[in-house]
Amino acid sequence: MHRYKLTIEYNGRGYNGWQVQKNQPSVQQHLEEALFRFCGALTPTICAGRTDAGVHALGQVVHVDFEHAHDPYRIMQGINFHLLPHSIAIVHVENVKPDFSARFDAVRRHYRYRIVNRRARLALDAGRAWHVPVELNISAMREGANLLVGHHDFSSFRASECQAKSPVKTLENLDIKTTETELNIDVSARSFLHHQVRNMVGTLVYVGHGKLTPQDIPLVLEAKNRAAAGPTAPAEGLYFMRVEY
Amino acid sequence: MHRYKLTIEYNGRGYNGWQVQKNQPSVQQHLEEALFRFCGALTPTICAGRTDAGVHALGQVVHVDFEHAHDPYRIMQGINFHLLPHSIAIVHVENVKPDFSARFDAVRRHYRYRIVNRRARLALDAGRAWHVPVELNISAMREGANLLVGHHDFSSFRASECQAKSPVKTLENLDIKTTETELNIDVSARSFLHHQVRNMVGTLVYVGHGKLTPQDIPLVLEAKNRAAAGPTAPAEGLYFMRVEY
Repeated sequence: MHRYKLTIEYNGRGYNGWQVQKNQPSVQQHLEEALFRFCGALTPTICAGRTDAGVHALGQVVHVDFEHAHDPYRIMQGINFHLLPHSIAIVHVENVKPDFSARFDAVRRHYRYRIVNRRARLALDAGRAWHVPVELNISAMREGANLLVGHHDFSSFRASECQAKSPVKTLENLDIKTTETELNIDVSARSFLHHQVRNMVGTLVYVGHGKLTPQDIPLVLEAKNRAAAGPTAPAEGLYFMRVEY
Repeated sequence: MHRYKLTIEYNGRGYNGWQVQKNQPSVQQHLEEALFRFCGALTPTICAGRTDAGVHALGQVVHVDFEHAHDPYRIMQGINFHLLPHSIAIVHVENVKPDFSARFDAVRRHYRYRIVNRRARLALDAGRAWHVPVELNISAMREGANLLVGHHDFSSFRASECQAKSPVKTLENLDIKTTETELNIDVSARSFLHHQVRNMVGTLVYVGHGKLTPQDIPLVLEAKNRAAAGPTAPAEGLYFMRVEY
């Protein structure tokens, strides 16, 4: 048995998220079909983070086991061939120890959320960013963002379907970078609750609109109630960037 | 008669270039249909640069005349509504003098060419960049690029269908910016020959591969022969960024 770590890029548009579902195309299903065509055996995949429908990835990570050893470059080219015409590609392959887990060995996950802040609707970035047409107060958003960083009970930012044992997480970084019309919100933590990033972004956009103040953020955290926070930002702005092991 | 300057973004994929053509969807055709629905009159458009099939734009510029004056923001929102579901959007509208020409008053046109230089095929950037899987010698490309800047006879970089009166142009800027896996080649000039940017990029990639040396560039220019230069880079990597007036 030979274990490999695959790094994967995909456009979330058109897939019903990462996980295999009945009668719905998913990234995992297309990947496992390509793996079957590549090695002739059913090859289950374990990923670092199950992304929702519409969420993109530049650096999703999975581990897989093959009966035979293969050259990493040939694995990449072979699977990529069988993944066509899907908007999914393996960008890196590495031989790892048999006990490596893409899920449990991850020490830091990095996400980016892209907002285009302009009046005109999106053409090139349709499905690739959240279009916010009203001007945002970036300094208020940054002030609010700083109050989310750290060790907190994130119940107010947790989807009702979240299966995590504890709502307590350590948010290591939440950084807002701006260009003329774009906001890139970079977040990182060992792990996140379900919808945590999108709920934090939706809440910060409320701060940017003046519907909440930065000083409301500690109160939203204390409330431990989803209703206290802002709405869930759309999936299409979210990118799973990178995993550290 | 009221003249307006429209700044337009589009995804070139799926359109047979800017210009109206028989039985082929074009950006101009969709725009003129939306203009007709907006104002009820046939409204011809004159653009700053007719892009080829597959070429994208962030800042194409056109001028149009309306019989009645309109608020620029309402023009933008109205036309954008009628442009749906196309990957074309008006991003800015401005009232201009009746003698303003999007084409003839342009003093500088800016293009960017995007190359993704990695072994794995593209997923998120499919149709949005040129995938070059072999490692490129960037410093050789930069050396070659510097030898293209200036006032030259660009016949070696000119498409056979080019309708320009003279092959002599002044290339004001050709700058190669790099990230880990991406090259952004920024070029600017008052005007370009047909396919000039794509032919220069194809030639510089030949330099990056070692098929030509930087010192060959002056000889390619002197040859005044399309066969002396490298191949035409694919349309999908090219972005019409901005026009100065």
